[in-house]
Amino acid sequence: MSVLIAGSVALDDLKTPFGEKKNILGGSAVHASVSASFFTPVDLVGVVGKDFPKEHIDFLESRRIGLDGLKITDGKTFHWDGYYEFDMNEAHTIKTDLNVLADFDPVLNDRQKNSDFVFLANLTPGTQLNIISQLKKPKLIMADTMNFWIEHSRQQLIEVVKKTDIMLLNESEARQLMGTPNLITAAKELIKLGAKCVIIKKGEHGALLFTKTLHFSAPSFPQENLTDPTGAGDSFAGGVIGYLAKSDDLSDLNIKRAVIIGSVMASFNVEDFSLDRLRRLSEREITERYEMIRKYSIFDCLP
Amino acid sequence: MSVLIAGSVALDDLKTPFGEKKNILGGSAVHASVSASFFTPVDLVGVVGKDFPKEHIDFLESRRIGLDGLKITDGKTFHWDGYYEFDMNEAHTIKTDLNVLADFDPVLNDRQKNSDFVFLANLTPGTQLNIISQLKKPKLIMADTMNFWIEHSRQQLIEVVKKTDIMLLNESEARQLMGTPNLITAAKELIKLGAKCVIIKKGEHGALLFTKTLHFSAPSFPQENLTDPTGAGDSFAGGVIGYLAKSDDLSDLNIKRAVIIGSVMASFNVEDFSLDRLRRLSEREITERYEMIRKYSIFDCLP
Repeated sequence: MSVLIAGSVALDDLKTPFGEKKNILGGSAVHASVSASFFTPVDLVGVVGKDFPKEHIDFLESRRIGLDGLKITDGKTFHWDGYYEFDMNEAHTIKTDLNVLADFDPVLNDRQKNSDFVFLANLTPGTQLNIISQLKKPKLIMADTMNFWIEHSRQQLIEVVKKTDIMLLNESEARQLMGTPNLITAAKELIKLGAKCVIIKKGEHGALLFTKTLHFSAPSFPQENLTDPTGAGDSFAGGVIGYLAKSDDLSDLNIKRAVIIGSVMASFNVEDFSLDRLRRLSEREITERYEMIRKYSIFDCLP
Repeated sequence: MSVLIAGSVALDDLKTPFGEKKNILGGSAVHASVSASFFTPVDLVGVVGKDFPKEHIDFLESRRIGLDGLKITDGKTFHWDGYYEFDMNEAHTIKTDLNVLADFDPVLNDRQKNSDFVFLANLTPGTQLNIISQLKKPKLIMADTMNFWIEHSRQQLIEVVKKTDIMLLNESEARQLMGTPNLITAAKELIKLGAKCVIIKKGEHGALLFTKTLHFSAPSFPQENLTDPTGAGDSFAGGVIGYLAKSDDLSDLNIKRAVIIGSVMASFNVEDFSLDRLRRLSEREITERYEMIRKYSIFDCLP
């Protein structure tokens, strides 16, 4: 099944306790697409400036990522400059230059309009709605967001939630959007609004998955080797959508597998800067880590 | 198998978004003992003042909790005055009056010295070491602590860790004690110090269990009905030690069950003020909730 992933393509400057990097490949659509590409071919929808290095284009193409939807336009590529301190749970932004992303108005071609599985990574809710309106027969739409849109475009974001099969948020976004400190309550409210499924990303604590009838508490991989958390949530999302598209199975059982695959992909992504760990990742490592997470979380009935 | 639980017995004033209570029964030894009493008889070691109400004594005795070790002395009972705000993850202390707890110097009787399973709830590390030195043939010692002792009695606390089978800490305590933001690294360091097993309590995110060879990521019950978080960690601990003593089985498989039982007991404890939810809790509710947590966390192999 075909996968469309729309979001930012970025050149980042960042600093973690493990090093400092300038102008490295990043962006939500890139992290999600490369992660999904381990499971299925991907169409990426995004925009870059003329400064975007040819080597990154070559790398994305080498991962079976279709770039018909990557517009190269006059101007500079979206740029994020930030750092992580000792505990690395929080990203600190020094500067965000939207550059060419400011006028991003994606127009899908016929193939893209007919995509089955769609992931709308963090974009303005207006852009997300624009893309949704162009889709002909989506089988599954998953959408992400961020605190900025909750504060500034809440009504449009609620429209996205209504049209979304899987709404993806992190803990603080879920609390903020639904105005409750309780994650379970927040998820239930999002489902009342119209999302068929809600996934709350909890970073090192795993993820929670909710539908009207299903509750799943997904553990994470116990990661000791955390080098750069940038893109963890997007590689999680890429794993989820890629695995669902590959298996074309939306049963409860399989959605739970997809969430664990998401955790696996995120756990690899954070082990090195940019996409560097995924560049050298093998399918065997993915299945092995899935089994490790399973082993770490098994417990049996009371006797 | 006999269980000894030593810690504070308190009369608390507290306020949560769901109400305000004055002079209610609390304290680490009380929450842990009542929780453990669902599984096994308990000996409580603690101290109260002459102001401690007879009705609380009657309640503890009704739960098969032996009170030979509860010293009633001149002075006032330990008193905590605090509150929780909207998100309830953090307790705010208005005032702590140690009162009779300031001079607590427990002397065990012969039966207590021969206890098999021992839980040293939050006390000064010096008092914990004093109790350990009186034990004749303990099968399992579990110890808790708090940030205050990490800051002020780190060396003595390290001695406790060395003599402990299960070291129990919350996330921030584990990070603070081992000087690392990474929980996995912190647990491994604690095991290097000498703890046979480390349990890191993560509140709504469950718990992590480590031994030299075992890693277990335990989910929590998805709690919507959070009324008063006071005593959650102690009722967790009471469930763990009570279940282990009842089953007298320290296999990896059974320690994992005990951690889930701990989560079950904590999840009930927070549903009402003081011990009120546990006063009306049935064994059937405990086993049902255990199965719910299991159901919520099951996922299968990749096909």
